[in-house]
Amino acid sequence: MEKSKIGVYGLGVMGQSIALNLLNHGYQVSVYNKSKEKTEKFIHEKISNQKAVACNDIQSFVDSLEKPRMILLMITAGKVVDEVIDALLPYLSEEDILIDGGNSYFMDTIERNRRLKEKHIYYIGMGISGGEQGALLGPSMMPSGNYQAYQMIQPVFETIAAKAKDDQPCIAYIGEDGSGHYVKMMHNGIEYADIQIISEAYELMRQAAKMSNEEIQQVFEQWNEGRLKSYLIEITAKILQKKDEKTNQYLIDVILDSASQKGTGKWTSIEGLSIGSAVPTIAQSVFSRIISSQKEERVRISEIFPQKTIIEMEDKKQFIEYLEKAVYASKIAAYAQGFDLLKKASKQYHWNLNYGEIAMIWREGCIIRAQFLEEIKKAYETEPENLMVSDQFKEDIKEALFSWREIAKMIIDAGIYAPGILSALSYFDGIRSNRTGANLIQAQRDYFGAHTYERIDQEGNFHTEW
Amino acid sequence: MEKSKIGVYGLGVMGQSIALNLLNHGYQVSVYNKSKEKTEKFIHEKISNQKAVACNDIQSFVDSLEKPRMILLMITAGKVVDEVIDALLPYLSEEDILIDGGNSYFMDTIERNRRLKEKHIYYIGMGISGGEQGALLGPSMMPSGNYQAYQMIQPVFETIAAKAKDDQPCIAYIGEDGSGHYVKMMHNGIEYADIQIISEAYELMRQAAKMSNEEIQQVFEQWNEGRLKSYLIEITAKILQKKDEKTNQYLIDVILDSASQKGTGKWTSIEGLSIGSAVPTIAQSVFSRIISSQKEERVRISEIFPQKTIIEMEDKKQFIEYLEKAVYASKIAAYAQGFDLLKKASKQYHWNLNYGEIAMIWREGCIIRAQFLEEIKKAYETEPENLMVSDQFKEDIKEALFSWREIAKMIIDAGIYAPGILSALSYFDGIRSNRTGANLIQAQRDYFGAHTYERIDQEGNFHTEW
Repeated sequence: MEKSKIGVYGLGVMGQSIALNLLNHGYQVSVYNKSKEKTEKFIHEKISNQKAVACNDIQSFVDSLEKPRMILLMITAGKVVDEVIDALLPYLSEEDILIDGGNSYFMDTIERNRRLKEKHIYYIGMGISGGEQGALLGPSMMPSGNYQAYQMIQPVFETIAAKAKDDQPCIAYIGEDGSGHYVKMMHNGIEYADIQIISEAYELMRQAAKMSNEEIQQVFEQWNEGRLKSYLIEITAKILQKKDEKTNQYLIDVILDSASQKGTGKWTSIEGLSIGSAVPTIAQSVFSRIISSQKEERVRISEIFPQKTIIEMEDKKQFIEYLEKAVYASKIAAYAQGFDLLKKASKQYHWNLNYGEIAMIWREGCIIRAQFLEEIKKAYETEPENLMVSDQFKEDIKEALFSWREIAKMIIDAGIYAPGILSALSYFDGIRSNRTGANLIQAQRDYFGAHTYERIDQEGNFHTEW
Repeated sequence: MEKSKIGVYGLGVMGQSIALNLLNHGYQVSVYNKSKEKTEKFIHEKISNQKAVACNDIQSFVDSLEKPRMILLMITAGKVVDEVIDALLPYLSEEDILIDGGNSYFMDTIERNRRLKEKHIYYIGMGISGGEQGALLGPSMMPSGNYQAYQMIQPVFETIAAKAKDDQPCIAYIGEDGSGHYVKMMHNGIEYADIQIISEAYELMRQAAKMSNEEIQQVFEQWNEGRLKSYLIEITAKILQKKDEKTNQYLIDVILDSASQKGTGKWTSIEGLSIGSAVPTIAQSVFSRIISSQKEERVRISEIFPQKTIIEMEDKKQFIEYLEKAVYASKIAAYAQGFDLLKKASKQYHWNLNYGEIAMIWREGCIIRAQFLEEIKKAYETEPENLMVSDQFKEDIKEALFSWREIAKMIIDAGIYAPGILSALSYFDGIRSNRTGANLIQAQRDYFGAHTYERIDQEGNFHTEW
């Protein structure tokens, strides 16, 4: 029997979709899943061509593959990845390639890379974004590891990747060891902030401007024709149209305002704290989900401190214009934070990240896909101090500043919880401060802990007997 | 020779100060330091009584102690703690007590506790706050571990602890295993926020209200006579008086606005993210230090986006009144976040933390010491949903709200970087929202990832084919 081009280990939602994507592009694909039933169900229900090879044990799965073998692991991140690697190892040959397509923690990927290198097996950590639909029709992919190994898998994955308008596949070699999973993590961090900012705009329109779902829906639809055009704005407009079958109300109004999370926003925030990159808007997006999930507590507290949300709204059209600018500027700030994290990570972990290229592979396939990312690519053609002051964005920011501040003050007056927009503006005011109050912080630290301080007029560290 | 009551291992600044504190209270103390020279120098230069026993090797150090032995480790947190434990172990007997007085990571303390329990050695993780002066004259201490072991060391440490006005020693048994180091970590997180808020008040007075050092100094002095009275406000007033010997300028004006950090604020923020407690003001304090340290970048960016900071200041007296309220309310919000973290940690790690008692042992000895902490103790006599809505504080918050919002809007208009005060207000608006925009977040997550949502009108998790 002819050998398969690639093997997919794990037939969860994402594994099935990627396998189908590969099959639809004409590749012969071997599939394996721990439970045999799932494999059989997949083959019988979803496969209409003969190029799928169902395998019932690991040895026949590995043996069914062309050498050097290409095995894509589509399994839950965590300890199970190591268990699967250990189960596969006895059957692998030198120069075979394992690809981890899950949301693994980048440090685990670094360690697995090191461990398998000793056994002359290539390990590619590959972040995959786009959910089930993306995986099936073309995801955005962020692979990292040995570059030669990447070149071997490149033709296959370029084929199944999402294609941007210029037909470029949304995949690029990110760098060594864990960099692919790192970039995917940071992508999700930006996604948290993007979603948070959009939800705040919605809440401001709903609660402060007392707009109807129809009115808000129209605003998002209109925004999706301008510079905010993106998948997340597009689906927001669609969501706001949807009626609930049970009650015939708008579905959005019967959904509980209690948000969950799966961890990547948290990881991104923790990374920022750990390696010294300020990512306040991403962190605030995580805190906001935590606070949202305390629904009962919030309701009880709101009885003591009722929300007033009375704001003067003389001109609704102007408010929407201000809001669009505030959302756009906040979004730039969130991306600026994400890319600042990458800049510091690139140094910290000795990767040589290409920021412009990373932005380009997010243009299609992934959750934060948007035209906007081409601007980021252009911004990184020079080396901006920060994305917000790049030639691409600085005029936008200048032009948005007045509106951004007006919206921030409206948030404060109305007592609306919008930490994304507020922290984004505050971040901007931070990175462009030529003076902050941190001299007092250092003076205090030297006072109580002899931690020393620097001076503005000479080099060195100084301590004062206060 | 008579055996010593206690041994102090490690004669760094903190170790020396604690040893002197013990000696000054009449205890016979054995001291050991890896480098013999340091031990000798300490004995010759600092000790004027005969109760100090200098030991040159570990065996004689351990043998010099009364049984069950009490050994206080005053060494740098990290791997070296395990090395020292391993070096001591061969000489210890069952029921001896090791006390880790460093800023160890609480998870390490949990693990060491477990490991030593197997060998029937007691391990007390004890956070010590107050810096060099505190250690010498009376620190605030947060011990945890086996309760019987705590009772054995209690008399000694109560003797050397700081005493509150009512003469209560600033030490209390916190709980099992790592809880003492955890509470110390969270103390430092609050300290970060407290310092940040004070530095923002200073910066607002300096930059937005164009006040002189003398004027600002008077404000802090005046605040230190009111409800803000605390060690940090007190030293701020002192710092602002200090002249630089070299230039005869005020010292504060020659100190670089670039703040450093040693990690505990970062840990607190990471913990909040990890266990699901919103601590935005603490995290913003850490991000603020990061941004402050990017001084050169900030100066370059400020050339593109100059700070304007023109605000109308018709009535400076009123501004100061507003500011005092904003600072007080922000401080309550920061403490509310810290205590929310403790509440969630107590559940997560199965500790049975006594929040009121924890507040009480911070009244003296530590960096955040303040009368204010008695109010927190009172607040926790009932079980408030959140510190901000406790009977102790809710009227203060209500009374401060208008001023707090005025100051926040001033921050935004002036473009001053004050993420502490802004995030504190935003946190308040979050915890008292009966509705947030998180229903849209859940709708989006269900749209692109089938993550499901809850409904307001029935139990369960729902998915929509959007």
